[in-house]
Amino acid sequence: MGRWEPNASGRLREAAMALYVERGFDQTTVAEIAERAGLTARTFFRYFADKREVLFAGSASLQGSLVAALEAAPGSASPMRAIAAALDAAATLLGEDRAYARQRQSVITANAELRERELIKLASLSAALADGLRRRGVAEANASLAAEAGVAVFRVAFERWLTDPDEPDLSEVMRDSLDQLTALTAAPVTV
Amino acid sequence: MGRWEPNASGRLREAAMALYVERGFDQTTVAEIAERAGLTARTFFRYFADKREVLFAGSASLQGSLVAALEAAPGSASPMRAIAAALDAAATLLGEDRAYARQRQSVITANAELRERELIKLASLSAALADGLRRRGVAEANASLAAEAGVAVFRVAFERWLTDPDEPDLSEVMRDSLDQLTALTAAPVTV
Repeated sequence: MGRWEPNASGRLREAAMALYVERGFDQTTVAEIAERAGLTARTFFRYFADKREVLFAGSASLQGSLVAALEAAPGSASPMRAIAAALDAAATLLGEDRAYARQRQSVITANAELRERELIKLASLSAALADGLRRRGVAEANASLAAEAGVAVFRVAFERWLTDPDEPDLSEVMRDSLDQLTALTAAPVTV
Repeated sequence: MGRWEPNASGRLREAAMALYVERGFDQTTVAEIAERAGLTARTFFRYFADKREVLFAGSASLQGSLVAALEAAPGSASPMRAIAAALDAAATLLGEDRAYARQRQSVITANAELRERELIKLASLSAALADGLRRRGVAEANASLAAEAGVAVFRVAFERWLTDPDEPDLSEVMRDSLDQLTALTAAPVTV
């Protein structure tokens, strides 16, 4: 199955991202990614199903970590407290490498197919968090609503983190955004 | 351009929905829809770009109505009050025909491509509501968050309305869901 290549997946990911930013996602081939990484296309396909998967390879494990954090929240925690624990886990996992996150976001924003894939990923995350809340005994209606609200906070906070020139911590932005949602919904709805 | 057909678009929509439910979306052709409606494929294409558009033809006007309702809210209204006005408009437009809404939902749920299209529609709605809030002078971060929260309420309330055996009014379910979101986020996040 070919010789062992040190950190092949990391090199492929870096090469892919550099090419996606330089040329655009559609204009980049797997052969070019492999070449840039000093590897073969065959090695590429040992790590990724296709060039899109380079951008989404972490999705399943991210979702798993968020659900695990939600499940690990104390039994007495409110639904939004459990969601906050999941958001903290997301911040820990995604908040390390802002430069990579920015590049990834710019590639995704520029391509309709990738934007759709990202939407599907977030819908899947919302469904998984709602399932997790139901397993914690949260009633159906509240479970879906808390999960959707959590994903709303995730999206807005992540975007804010990527663009804020003050470069705050992602966990801080997540918590601020959750507080902001509380303030927004607490304001009287009927005038 | 062919003779005038009374209510051709309504007949085509009804025929399409019946076939999508009977055979599945993928197994239905435009020729079959036209035949069932007693019309020609040529007439079909005068009203819809393709068989998918039968399900999504109302999206743009729905989004327009929601944004108009948001814009018509009193200048003093809080962001979530303006969002609530948009949700009320959605309830008025969508809440008339539960049987049709249920059929449409079952067709969309059964097909990955249609589910993606629905996600894109909701993302577009969220962006349009956020833009509307910004035009009302709401700060960027709050505008996105309120819009995302509004779409979260919309999704959960719509789903609940379709499945609740008590058949409540959609506007009532929307308002309940918004209240529920307020209660969820007001519960202490830190234990």
